[in-house]
Amino acid sequence: MQHKNLAVRLSELVQKLGGELRGADVLVSRLAPLDDSDCESITFLSNPKLKSQLAQTQAAAVIVTAADADNLSLPCIVTNDPYLYFARVGQLFHPLPVAVPGIHPTAVVADDAQIDPSVEIGPNVVVEAGARIGARTILKAACIIGAGVEIGGDCLFYPRVTVYSDCVIGSRVIVHAGAVIGSDGFGNAWARDHWEKIPQIGRAVIGDDVEIGANTTIDRGALGDTVIASGARLDNMIQIGHNVEIGRFTAIAACSGIAGSTKIGAGCLIGGGVGMSGHLKIADRVVVLGGSNVPSSIEEPGVYGGSVTPIMPQAVWRRNAVHYSHLDQLVKRVRELEKKIGTAENETGSKV
Amino acid sequence: MQHKNLAVRLSELVQKLGGELRGADVLVSRLAPLDDSDCESITFLSNPKLKSQLAQTQAAAVIVTAADADNLSLPCIVTNDPYLYFARVGQLFHPLPVAVPGIHPTAVVADDAQIDPSVEIGPNVVVEAGARIGARTILKAACIIGAGVEIGGDCLFYPRVTVYSDCVIGSRVIVHAGAVIGSDGFGNAWARDHWEKIPQIGRAVIGDDVEIGANTTIDRGALGDTVIASGARLDNMIQIGHNVEIGRFTAIAACSGIAGSTKIGAGCLIGGGVGMSGHLKIADRVVVLGGSNVPSSIEEPGVYGGSVTPIMPQAVWRRNAVHYSHLDQLVKRVRELEKKIGTAENETGSKV
Amino acid sequence: MQHKNLAVRLSELVQKLGGELRGADVLVSRLAPLDDSDCESITFLSNPKLKSQLAQTQAAAVIVTAADADNLSLPCIVTNDPYLYFARVGQLFHPLPVAVPGIHPTAVVADDAQIDPSVEIGPNVVVEAGARIGARTILKAACIIGAGVEIGGDCLFYPRVTVYSDCVIGSRVIVHAGAVIGSDGFGNAWARDHWEKIPQIGRAVIGDDVEIGANTTIDRGALGDTVIASGARLDNMIQIGHNVEIGRFTAIAACSGIAGSTKIGAGCLIGGGVGMSGHLKIADRVVVLGGSNVPSSIEEPGVYGGSVTPIMPQAVWRRNAVHYSHLDQLVKRVRELEKKIGTAENETGSKV
Repeated sequence: MQHKNLAVRLSELVQKLGGELRGADVLVSRLAPLDDSDCESITFLSNPKLKSQLAQTQAAAVIVTAADADNLSLPCIVTNDPYLYFARVGQLFHPLPVAVPGIHPTAVVADDAQIDPSVEIGPNVVVEAGARIGARTILKAACIIGAGVEIGGDCLFYPRVTVYSDCVIGSRVIVHAGAVIGSDGFGNAWARDHWEKIPQIGRAVIGDDVEIGANTTIDRGALGDTVIASGARLDNMIQIGHNVEIGRFTAIAACSGIAGSTKIGAGCLIGGGVGMSGHLKIADRVVVLGGSNVPSSIEEPGVYGGSVTPIMPQAVWRRNAVHYSHLDQLVKRVRELEKKIGTAENETGSKV
Repeated sequence: MQHKNLAVRLSELVQKLGGELRGADVLVSRLAPLDDSDCESITFLSNPKLKSQLAQTQAAAVIVTAADADNLSLPCIVTNDPYLYFARVGQLFHPLPVAVPGIHPTAVVADDAQIDPSVEIGPNVVVEAGARIGARTILKAACIIGAGVEIGGDCLFYPRVTVYSDCVIGSRVIVHAGAVIGSDGFGNAWARDHWEKIPQIGRAVIGDDVEIGANTTIDRGALGDTVIASGARLDNMIQIGHNVEIGRFTAIAACSGIAGSTKIGAGCLIGGGVGMSGHLKIADRVVVLGGSNVPSSIEEPGVYGGSVTPIMPQAVWRRNAVHYSHLDQLVKRVRELEKKIGTAENETGSKV
Repeated sequence: MQHKNLAVRLSELVQKLGGELRGADVLVSRLAPLDDSDCESITFLSNPKLKSQLAQTQAAAVIVTAADADNLSLPCIVTNDPYLYFARVGQLFHPLPVAVPGIHPTAVVADDAQIDPSVEIGPNVVVEAGARIGARTILKAACIIGAGVEIGGDCLFYPRVTVYSDCVIGSRVIVHAGAVIGSDGFGNAWARDHWEKIPQIGRAVIGDDVEIGANTTIDRGALGDTVIASGARLDNMIQIGHNVEIGRFTAIAACSGIAGSTKIGAGCLIGGGVGMSGHLKIADRVVVLGGSNVPSSIEEPGVYGGSVTPIMPQAVWRRNAVHYSHLDQLVKRVRELEKKIGTAENETGSKV
């Protein structure tokens, strides 16, 4: 369900967002996918596989590349990157909420907190001593902002975000419900017959223009800081261990966990459900496929996978899985056979 | 620890729930497992492996199949499905809480929210503008219900559930603490030197009779809706991506993640810790074993596994794991050997 | 960023914590890592690999073993376990917060709850009927304590912890933000055409000196209890299923999930992202490497791994992964080759 937007002409979109208008200057008021659009919708084509749907679409207009615009009877906006253009039309139709300045009477705000007068603070929010919150930031219901926390301007915190004391968050940061920023890292020293807690005295430091998903947890540093660089994107239910560093514009999909002190470079794409060991170094522009475990550092940009096998009928899986724990033996058996009958590898060897 | 229930006679249970009473019409007041029961307990036997425990049980009565009832000296209720019967006795002894109508004075409820007078709203709950909540629904402490949300009747929301604006939830839905429904999906378009957010303007739509576990997150659709069909069961800490569809009566165990736009059929059983890629189609009545990655669609009903290997001593694991990345080479070496000495496969080939 | 501590002399540390002072009795006021310390810092060396950094460190003093103290010009404290000693210096410099007795006026506390007068209860906390909270415990903002819950003394609950009714928590327990204790286990009985809920009537019982991470979920028992024994350590975002038992001093890293009724022994170390099936028995002193799936019980102490493969470039991964589902066939082909040419295995066989 979408709220009804004001209708705009394609020419207005082109004026604001660029691109080239071809065909009638129709009115559109709704974003829609190719296969579920109506006469008020604007849609887009970025995946060539879906080109066949273009003929059937009920949309009023479509955003396409020049290549796809040829022979198109529908009104269209031509642009190099239809997906990005569509995102921007979406931002026009559905802008982020604007702060309604004021502190809800049920909020509990420390006397010495420095809250910009343009900030919107929702019901049951708690802001502890010495916290500072920048202009036009919105804290929705029940957010808890610890003592000494700094939050920049134009941020949007959905309900129930918790920020532990002394953490730092940049500007234009979006944090979704239930996320926890700055919880203690997992530091324990074994003392002969019990664990002793290692105080976690660093911070979590989040740059500008970061988005953090629902129920994601970001631990503070043990000593030094945990750092999420500007422009990064974290999906839901991600765990970031203490002293991890996530590079600029790196995006991590849901359910991934990054163990302590691992440094991920800039511009990386980490799939969902990825588990990374601690103390690794991941180069810039590394892509890790969803479900992979990363037990060692990755030094070169590129696309990487591991641990994920095909999905198999149970009987096939069981029959195969049993051999996983005897692979080494199998390799030895093959080597033995090769020795006996002199295959290419051995022959090559004998030529040396 | 259980609260003491009123004692009931086996004949009363049979009258209410069916089944056949054999032996003395004793009183029972407590549910218990076979191996930890006392003279006030009723227990059950559904797993034939545990039949030997029947001789030693201290229970006052037991729920069994006809086959297991023979030669049993204990009072018993005979039924086709002792596990289900036990569940129903449990529901009798421990019914869901009944709404105590009223809005706690600390709750913050928008003037135009439509709250049925029979609804129970706990402390610090927030209900935003235009939300509608059906008869006898209970919202426990600190739930946050966004603007325009619709919730049916007889629901039970445990503390701190957050529902983003415009989502729709059916009747008789149970949601556990910390769950987030309708958070933004992970949609980002790369704009040459930064990410731009793709507005997530669909909804999360939850059917009737659904149960959603603690800290589970369900994203709203990007365009169109994310749908959890009636009768589905989601355990704790599950991530449901945008535009996912979960079929009727499908049950998913904890820690699983379903990436965007994947459609899971009806009557599926998805184990714990399963990771599914995006844009897949999973047929009805598919069972996926816990821990599996599902990188591709599954078109036929059946039981499937993958990615999980036996657990091995570290040295064995390490010795074997190293070969995982040379499997292709190993297969080639075997093929080479086969060529040299002409095994069955080659012989078959030569017959063609 | 650290708050400035009072400076202390090394001799004072030795007096309080033991160890032997060598060199000048300097003042230190800050904990720091070897490679990021200044003239007010005390650091430590526990990893021999970092010994080379000792020469360059700017620290005022260092905690070392006797072996590493030789030839060291820097003032040092000599001890058998520098890491543990460092943890204790950390506890001196950064002690846990001390309860400021009192109930915040926004808290909602049931009349019959038994709250020790020394307890600190933060804003928007809810304590339901019959709950009991021991001396000096701190409940930070928005914690929800269910009816009949018992919490010991000297606990520290960070914001938004939820404890369901009737659960029991020991003394000196630390629980981080968003954790949920005592939610319903995942119990469903199939009733021909729908699921019926199996009431979860056990408790979650947490021992003394336990730490529980952010957004971790611990289900109550179905019948009987879920038990986390004293001294255990659970990191963030861990799922503990119903009737699980975690032994004393067992530590589990983030993102792991333990399915229902599994019993883990004492002194175990479970890595991050580990998935354990239900109804398993894990012996005492078992170490499971991060990312492993544990599909079967482990009967002997030791270090175990599984399921994790090396991370590979995508093309290599894909080329190898395809063979995973044909391993059984490969083994048969090797056996066939061995039969044909009579390798060691067959020869051994022929001797029998």
